[in-house]
Amino acid sequence: MTLDLAGDPVALTTTLVDFRSESGTEQPLADEVERALGALNSLTVARDGDTVVARTDLGRSHRIILAGHLDTVPIAGNVPSRRDGDLLYGCGTSDMKSGLAVALHLAATVPDPAFDLTVVAYDNEEVEASKNGLGRVSRNHPEWLAADFAVLLEPTDGTVEGGCQGTLRAQVTTHGKRAHSARSWHGVNAIHGAAEILNRLTAYTAREIDIDGCLYREGLNAVGISGGVAGNVIPDRCDVTVNFRFAPDRTEKDAEEHVREVFEGFEVTVTDSAPGALPGLSSPAAVSFVEALDVPVQAKLGWTDVARFATLGVPAVNFGPGDPNLAHQAGEYVDVRKITDAAAALRRYLTAG
Amino acid sequence: MTLDLAGDPVALTTTLVDFRSESGTEQPLADEVERALGALNSLTVARDGDTVVARTDLGRSHRIILAGHLDTVPIAGNVPSRRDGDLLYGCGTSDMKSGLAVALHLAATVPDPAFDLTVVAYDNEEVEASKNGLGRVSRNHPEWLAADFAVLLEPTDGTVEGGCQGTLRAQVTTHGKRAHSARSWHGVNAIHGAAEILNRLTAYTAREIDIDGCLYREGLNAVGISGGVAGNVIPDRCDVTVNFRFAPDRTEKDAEEHVREVFEGFEVTVTDSAPGALPGLSSPAAVSFVEALDVPVQAKLGWTDVARFATLGVPAVNFGPGDPNLAHQAGEYVDVRKITDAAAALRRYLTAG
Repeated sequence: MTLDLAGDPVALTTTLVDFRSESGTEQPLADEVERALGALNSLTVARDGDTVVARTDLGRSHRIILAGHLDTVPIAGNVPSRRDGDLLYGCGTSDMKSGLAVALHLAATVPDPAFDLTVVAYDNEEVEASKNGLGRVSRNHPEWLAADFAVLLEPTDGTVEGGCQGTLRAQVTTHGKRAHSARSWHGVNAIHGAAEILNRLTAYTAREIDIDGCLYREGLNAVGISGGVAGNVIPDRCDVTVNFRFAPDRTEKDAEEHVREVFEGFEVTVTDSAPGALPGLSSPAAVSFVEALDVPVQAKLGWTDVARFATLGVPAVNFGPGDPNLAHQAGEYVDVRKITDAAAALRRYLTAG
Repeated sequence: MTLDLAGDPVALTTTLVDFRSESGTEQPLADEVERALGALNSLTVARDGDTVVARTDLGRSHRIILAGHLDTVPIAGNVPSRRDGDLLYGCGTSDMKSGLAVALHLAATVPDPAFDLTVVAYDNEEVEASKNGLGRVSRNHPEWLAADFAVLLEPTDGTVEGGCQGTLRAQVTTHGKRAHSARSWHGVNAIHGAAEILNRLTAYTAREIDIDGCLYREGLNAVGISGGVAGNVIPDRCDVTVNFRFAPDRTEKDAEEHVREVFEGFEVTVTDSAPGALPGLSSPAAVSFVEALDVPVQAKLGWTDVARFATLGVPAVNFGPGDPNLAHQAGEYVDVRKITDAAAALRRYLTAG
């Protein structure tokens, strides 16, 4: 399939959805994106694995990144795409080939932007973080990602979502002593010992905090619990897995200290964490972005790749035509009017400056 | 190997231990037991699968059962047996080839007992209840087990353990609503909902009750807990598996009602239960047994096959030379003096009447 970047972004979305690219199988699509961007005289194209990075070099005072991932979750009988009125159904329609289409379309149709432009189309966003193409490029070629502001075209239903919350997972463990359950007083029941962990979770009041006009809402939750040896044995261990979603004014270290404080007296093992990202909406590039788009701005509560840009010192927001509530569902679709609207809004920004 | 029933019961124990008979592989041993009992003119021998039942028919006013299982748990490098002073080491020394040896030895060496005698050597006690040989005979040939009193030669360290407690397992379940853990307020956390289940368990006071001079001590414990969908999902279900060990004055139905009452307001699913058995120590046959043996009498807190006799209306006790604390351990042994003592005590009973 050949990509027509300059044509209708809705048609381009359809072509991209029909071009299967489940995580790990992005190479043919990356090849075609590299070819199509390379055919534009305005851009210099670089590649790392299946990530394609194309840049203008117009000597503008500011540089803007438009970024989207190439991959989708596994296809669930929903490719090729299917059009029903204004709705385009198919795997990746919302998450996020519609956003990718908008970025590629603008790269091809804004010949004289107010900013220098970097378009990033990357691989392996839908799988484990260690494979993420944006993460790989930020390690191998951080200079490719130098910019004043980044827009990640993840599904936001046409709103601007600033920053993102951090996430930390920890195991909170109780220990006991095994015994036959017919003589339970010879043992110490570790599952009963976990009652206090659950009591602290139910009593926990999550913090809400406003940063740059975005309301972040934290959460501390058990996401797993396991314990038990056999049906006739008093269990000697119980593990509660908790997930702490924290506002971006906390560092990962602050978040860990907070979780350890909540579970004071218990064994706490942090299993993984990822930092949040401040919305950075007070930077000049962000202010003009929000003004030009004139759409609602809100906090991003989930974790997204904007945190990778934040780590590189690049303020970043999520803004895309897809519907986040439809992502990863077999019935995934996108309202094609949102694609046209998003392309028009970003065009206003890129040309107004 | 040939069994010499009339000789030293310690030597017979050694022979039986060296005659491997893990659950499911009892046939060669059952064949040899059938042959040896059949060689005694005093007994009529019947067989069902790998269970052997041998009976005198002396026209006595009362009939006594001596019962033991033929099988052992899997051998753990501890067969053949090894003698060290008074200790005989090996798989099944305590549980319960020493007890089986005492029963077989008495069948061969008390030619004129005060009671009619039924000896039961059965298969598959150490595996799932549905395979239990004693259970199978009680269904296929209940008349083979008709008696006034039964002695099960399970390890009791030479004491008499009366009756047994019942056991019931149930799953207590909470339901919630899934949501992304970054927006946990859209969901209902089923693991947090289980806090109240664990609180009721920790607050629970188990009953103690004296029946026929035996002190039964109940217990209600979590033996398993599980919940969780994924590290970023608010879980919509949590299951707590509880085990209720109940004194034999409660029926299974009473026990179930009690558990449902404790967890009022939660979904409770009973997964399995087995009735207890009253000690029955006030029956004339039991009174003379306890008097003749003159050893301590206590409640049996675990579940044993005496409950199967109770179901048939036969009062039953556990009495055996093995040490229950050594059962199922690689280092299992029996003190051979306990074998001699148990044989002598039972001989007193069978001849005194």
